[in-house]
Amino acid sequence: MTDIQFRSDVTLQLDDKMGDDAKVIRMAKASIKKTGGDMDEAARQGFINFLMRERHGVPFEHCAMTLYFEVPIFVMRQLAKHRISSISEASGRYTQMDGVFYRPVAQRPLIQVGRAGAYTFQQGNAYQDGLVQYVLAHASEAAYQEYEGLLEQGIAREVARMVLPVNVYTSGYITINLRSLMNLLSLRTANENATIKGHPQYEIELLAQRMEMYFASEFPLTYAAFEKNGRTAP
Amino acid sequence: MTDIQFRSDVTLQLDDKMGDDAKVIRMAKASIKKTGGDMDEAARQGFINFLMRERHGVPFEHCAMTLYFEVPIFVMRQLAKHRISSISEASGRYTQMDGVFYRPVAQRPLIQVGRAGAYTFQQGNAYQDGLVQYVLAHASEAAYQEYEGLLEQGIAREVARMVLPVNVYTSGYITINLRSLMNLLSLRTANENATIKGHPQYEIELLAQRMEMYFASEFPLTYAAFEKNGRTAP
Amino acid sequence: MTDIQFRSDVTLQLDDKMGDDAKVIRMAKASIKKTGGDMDEAARQGFINFLMRERHGVPFEHCAMTLYFEVPIFVMRQLAKHRISSISEASGRYTQMDGVFYRPVAQRPLIQVGRAGAYTFQQGNAYQDGLVQYVLAHASEAAYQEYEGLLEQGIAREVARMVLPVNVYTSGYITINLRSLMNLLSLRTANENATIKGHPQYEIELLAQRMEMYFASEFPLTYAAFEKNGRTAP
Amino acid sequence: MTDIQFRSDVTLQLDDKMGDDAKVIRMAKASIKKTGGDMDEAARQGFINFLMRERHGVPFEHCAMTLYFEVPIFVMRQLAKHRISSISEASGRYTQMDGVFYRPVAQRPLIQVGRAGAYTFQQGNAYQDGLVQYVLAHASEAAYQEYEGLLEQGIAREVARMVLPVNVYTSGYITINLRSLMNLLSLRTANENATIKGHPQYEIELLAQRMEMYFASEFPLTYAAFEKNGRTAP
Repeated sequence: MTDIQFRSDVTLQLDDKMGDDAKVIRMAKASIKKTGGDMDEAARQGFINFLMRERHGVPFEHCAMTLYFEVPIFVMRQLAKHRISSISEASGRYTQMDGVFYRPVAQRPLIQVGRAGAYTFQQGNAYQDGLVQYVLAHASEAAYQEYEGLLEQGIAREVARMVLPVNVYTSGYITINLRSLMNLLSLRTANENATIKGHPQYEIELLAQRMEMYFASEFPLTYAAFEKNGRTAP
Repeated sequence: MTDIQFRSDVTLQLDDKMGDDAKVIRMAKASIKKTGGDMDEAARQGFINFLMRERHGVPFEHCAMTLYFEVPIFVMRQLAKHRISSISEASGRYTQMDGVFYRPVAQRPLIQVGRAGAYTFQQGNAYQDGLVQYVLAHASEAAYQEYEGLLEQGIAREVARMVLPVNVYTSGYITINLRSLMNLLSLRTANENATIKGHPQYEIELLAQRMEMYFASEFPLTYAAFEKNGRTAP
Repeated sequence: MTDIQFRSDVTLQLDDKMGDDAKVIRMAKASIKKTGGDMDEAARQGFINFLMRERHGVPFEHCAMTLYFEVPIFVMRQLAKHRISSISEASGRYTQMDGVFYRPVAQRPLIQVGRAGAYTFQQGNAYQDGLVQYVLAHASEAAYQEYEGLLEQGIAREVARMVLPVNVYTSGYITINLRSLMNLLSLRTANENATIKGHPQYEIELLAQRMEMYFASEFPLTYAAFEKNGRTAP
Repeated sequence: MTDIQFRSDVTLQLDDKMGDDAKVIRMAKASIKKTGGDMDEAARQGFINFLMRERHGVPFEHCAMTLYFEVPIFVMRQLAKHRISSISEASGRYTQMDGVFYRPVAQRPLIQVGRAGAYTFQQGNAYQDGLVQYVLAHASEAAYQEYEGLLEQGIAREVARMVLPVNVYTSGYITINLRSLMNLLSLRTANENATIKGHPQYEIELLAQRMEMYFASEFPLTYAAFEKNGRTAP
């Protein structure tokens, strides 16, 4: 049997991008037949703040990033809900799934406290931490062994994969424009600065935080305006 | 441990719909400020054929169906790729997953033959059939037992579910307009009448065939035009 | 020459609809595998408020309205910016444009005061009011006379229409789901209750107000939640 | 009065782009966890042909172009129908419309022959040619004079512009991905190689042809596959 691998993280890498803060301004200034090319830094920041505050969303759509990801299927299922995007994902029909599985780190809160619609999460105790580690390791190994066993007996990949659990990793590319990305970040992070706080699952928040890092470094003025205006998509 | 259940089928039920063949015509005739209310059956069929052939797609978007579904997660993942739709699905974070799992019937082809990009599927032999039955039953039971065990120890549903395989069932509603539905049918069925044949996985084709049944009964003229024009979305 | 007609209003009529407040709840409750069928009025209102406040937008997408409209082209151009919708419009290529033109009522503010990005509108004086009435009447008549003249000389409709001004009326149908409709209302009305106030042109606000009337009567609980939560789309 | 200007053409310039043919392949190869980086020219062309023929559309969505345009409003109205795009356009509310108007060249067919749904266009005679030139020049000048007159009397731009005909120019930027662009080209050009021929208005075909030029030069393998496969969007 192939050795399987456990991970507690997600991969996210910038593959390609289109536009920058100046392009957001150039697109918006088209409404008054200007380019904004003569604006200084403060004026540019102020103008992007204005767009964000007044919910002029279209200028942000002209900028986009293509991101390479590796995530467990249960995260992929949440990512795929963001319809204003293009996703090209590895296929379990056309290629064998790798034996890479998610197993949370010890800090990952395990216990859900409170009533429906108002949950908070807390750390598990030592027994619970150990149990999750043990069961996920054991179940992932057993499942991958069954998967490989079925493949060896000539069963088609698309049938054999039915035994694989949703903590198995998949990979692919997502292209998403800045407006749709800001909507994703507002829902998939639980940030103190947010006017309306998201309730993301821990693992997709890991992914969203890495998206946010690229957003902040590639589009610093737009990112600052997003932060300043309650972290909601315009 | 809760008894678990095995299914080899999918559920699809019509929950709601908007429009009919006459509405398709009324929307299209708006372009010439008519309603089409005076057309007889043959004229109506001819006109819808014309729209389909000439790829006037928008009139078909004004009609939609809301469908209740129960499918395994590996089918749900394919369904969710159809972005021009609205999907409300059961949440494994907010509610416990039921112990219902997919296990194919004996007729389900198990063996993939041919080279990449040109596969065909064939029946498995008796051993392969038995193996798939056995392994899926065994693996599903073992996984659900682990899932319940984790829940009993107080682990949050969103963590415990990580052990569940992609043949576990989920459920929900999809609202999809006729234009997007025709695109789905063209890709998710492998019909002889299709100009460009789809290569769907067996299980999503089961779902698509049931969608097609409702399409045919609720929108018979549109459906006939879809069939007549190579089963591609306009 | 054909007599031409002047209007100061817009037409909006409900042609078809899908869903109701109970459907919003049924779609949302699918996440916990319930239907919400047992909830009383207060519970239903509370639940829809919760969806709106927490920005759970998808349940609202399963409900839609198809609306017949007659508006001047300059309003149509703004309406067509709302991409999450399906619009079937009369064609100036396939049918003759009617001689119906927009001319504002006396109350319509004519004067723009203030600096860029922060305009307010005020009533014109008697001379300005009269001038607008006179010029629009005169210009519309002259243009339609030229249009008819070109048609009489055998010029194609798609060429002849080039002389028509943007206050000429067009007509058609728009199908829009409730989520997209709420976004439209937030941008195309200037309501006191709005957290972020729209800056719509007077004439598209006329249209949006009529849309809002149907929204309020067909989906009263959803409408109340929209009002209560700052009139922004979830 | 300001001098007005007549044009018979459209402006289209490449402002920005994302991706290239190699990116289309890299996105598609993600389905089998490869990059396609080792393929030679012939293999790359063959693979893109395969994607196009089998209607694998998503890989083409990861590539996009941002294009600056100047077109008459009647062309803008057709362009705005392409919803899978982002358009930032000059605003007649926030800035004065320039006195630039469309007037067709002599070669532009003026006469529509045949029955509804099956029109062809033919050249006009000398009288018709002259008439169109004369009327469009005269009507555009008269309208712009009224427009300026209203502005001089303090009437708001958004009201004054109501007198302007649809042959006045507007400008802006459109960002469109390759899949949506191919759909636009299939509908807005009348090419001999097309399986299903479009029936575009002459003026938007001018625009589409310039889009096609950039498409062909920036994405030559994708363009060749589009040509080879009947010029329909995958």
